[in-house]
Amino acid sequence: MKENRVKRVLDALEDMGLTQMLITDPMSIYYLTGYCNQPFERFFGLLLRRDGAHAFFLNRLFPAPENSGITEVWYADTDPVTELVAKYVDHDAPLGVDKELTARFLLPLMEGKAATGFVNSSLAVDKTRGIKDAEEQEKMRAASAINDAAMAQFRGLVHAGVTEREIGDRMLQIYLDLGADGFSFPPLVAFGANAADPHHEPDDTVLREGDCVLFDVGCVKDGYCSDMTRTFYYKTVSDHCREIYETVRAANEAAEALIRPGVRLCDLDAAARDLITAKGYGPAFNHRLGHFIGLKEHEYGDVSAAFDWPVEPGMIFSIEPGVYLTGDTGVRVEDLVLVTEDGVELLNNYPHGLDVIE
Amino acid sequence: MKENRVKRVLDALEDMGLTQMLITDPMSIYYLTGYCNQPFERFFGLLLRRDGAHAFFLNRLFPAPENSGITEVWYADTDPVTELVAKYVDHDAPLGVDKELTARFLLPLMEGKAATGFVNSSLAVDKTRGIKDAEEQEKMRAASAINDAAMAQFRGLVHAGVTEREIGDRMLQIYLDLGADGFSFPPLVAFGANAADPHHEPDDTVLREGDCVLFDVGCVKDGYCSDMTRTFYYKTVSDHCREIYETVRAANEAAEALIRPGVRLCDLDAAARDLITAKGYGPAFNHRLGHFIGLKEHEYGDVSAAFDWPVEPGMIFSIEPGVYLTGDTGVRVEDLVLVTEDGVELLNNYPHGLDVIE
Repeated sequence: MKENRVKRVLDALEDMGLTQMLITDPMSIYYLTGYCNQPFERFFGLLLRRDGAHAFFLNRLFPAPENSGITEVWYADTDPVTELVAKYVDHDAPLGVDKELTARFLLPLMEGKAATGFVNSSLAVDKTRGIKDAEEQEKMRAASAINDAAMAQFRGLVHAGVTEREIGDRMLQIYLDLGADGFSFPPLVAFGANAADPHHEPDDTVLREGDCVLFDVGCVKDGYCSDMTRTFYYKTVSDHCREIYETVRAANEAAEALIRPGVRLCDLDAAARDLITAKGYGPAFNHRLGHFIGLKEHEYGDVSAAFDWPVEPGMIFSIEPGVYLTGDTGVRVEDLVLVTEDGVELLNNYPHGLDVIE
Repeated sequence: MKENRVKRVLDALEDMGLTQMLITDPMSIYYLTGYCNQPFERFFGLLLRRDGAHAFFLNRLFPAPENSGITEVWYADTDPVTELVAKYVDHDAPLGVDKELTARFLLPLMEGKAATGFVNSSLAVDKTRGIKDAEEQEKMRAASAINDAAMAQFRGLVHAGVTEREIGDRMLQIYLDLGADGFSFPPLVAFGANAADPHHEPDDTVLREGDCVLFDVGCVKDGYCSDMTRTFYYKTVSDHCREIYETVRAANEAAEALIRPGVRLCDLDAAARDLITAKGYGPAFNHRLGHFIGLKEHEYGDVSAAFDWPVEPGMIFSIEPGVYLTGDTGVRVEDLVLVTEDGVELLNNYPHGLDVIE
């Protein structure tokens, strides 16, 4: 058990009027216990209780945790697992559950009246995970430092006649050679009009003069994820593309410049969006400005109109404005940022300036 | 919409006293609509209603389905999606939900009284998916035929000094060359005592004379999964290993010989387990006899004491008895089987006989 993290979750639960919570997201369990497991369809849960009567529910086919330090409840595939879980829940109080708990287990717990009520208390875990401690910040810096170095090498793969797939196929080895453990998500490589699709996968499109070259890439290092986008141009850049690029770059930098404790996530989104809208590209920026990131490439919390959380020191999220013109071109400029006591630390230092590759 | 499959689900719901169901498992939605999507944290749902007022809930960032033929309800990240879903639910009847629906969406639907009750009706979808139609059976045959051919090539990679990882690293290309689209799960390659761990990952263990060589492998072809295990021996086989091998092989063949419509899944498990127990290895066979498989490598339904379903034509599952002796050796012999009108069709035809590789 990571005692400090458990305490932060229990404190957040107390603020919600809750004394207990059942956590089932394997990544949250890893975050709180250091025990990594992928349960697939089997139940895997951590019950945290204010009174310290925590319990860890494990299938007999899972590997044993090392010194979990809490009550381990082992069950077999043929055991009625929700009845077992209910035995450890305080029946006279409501139970917080995380947003990942599935109907398969939630409905029987409700029918068995395991608690007086059931509340989605994910925020207690998600906001705790959203504020990275010193150890996590160091790992996030390391993952993004690799990503900066990798971007320079990816740029070097751009040459006449190359296809998206040929570049994409070389990325994993570059990351591994730089010390990463793997991708944090499948890399995006998009030339020209393909960049207008924010989810384009590398295909056999051949690079042409005047194309934009968009790389949205990230790696995992020691369990933590990086994520960065840069958009280059090949040989030449049209005035049209230059205007879009500079608009997106300005939106990125305007949002990043605003970041300090107290500013709201939605205000960051608005700052970038207003700037893009003023240039006439508002409808072409069709996604949130950013997302939280850490053990997963997308963690709970968006930099968008839907989140009015004030920014706090230790938060790490992406700032990634974009403009997408179907059949024409696309641009995105993305960094990861760490909120500090008095401002912001950019985790990505790869330059933003318009870069025409010769 | 795949009308036949939707009808089978609606009929199964009617048998459960339900007139509507919300389906959120992306693979089940693919099965019913042909539309493939990975929504990550976003809501993605298919509401099926007996009265035909189906609705398909899609985030604006998802690709558009081609001719879905049903009401498409598009929402943005900033929309209150469960309120939107509730508008399409019959409030005066209970709502079936699938076991994958998460608390994040289920609790607000309950709080908003979207229906008179909420029932885990996954079986309506899962049992439908568990009985493969003719098109699916053909695809499952094709995926397993590739797996048989691949196993012969994997056997050819066994030679003095080779490591598990060296063999594992060559498997993907062999599958691709045989026409597969990729792995159905990361391959298991285990030598000697490593085979005692049913979840061992290929490492730098070097092959030694007398080792068992366990391959648990599968590929995806046209969306459908194969899965087979064979255990070979290198150069020599001890009497001890031979006895275990023949016990496991006999257990596999005893269970397979029993399969015909009407026999219960638990009886198949018992047949294999009794035979292994009679030889004194009962505790060393520490998992279910098999699992359903199709679009996913593990689908709902086990060949185990927990499932008393009578076997029906069109069901496809694995038969995979094993014996695991920690620090010593392990054996598993696994095939996929298709239940026919009057018996069984083995989808794997790679031989079972004890095979000592020279």
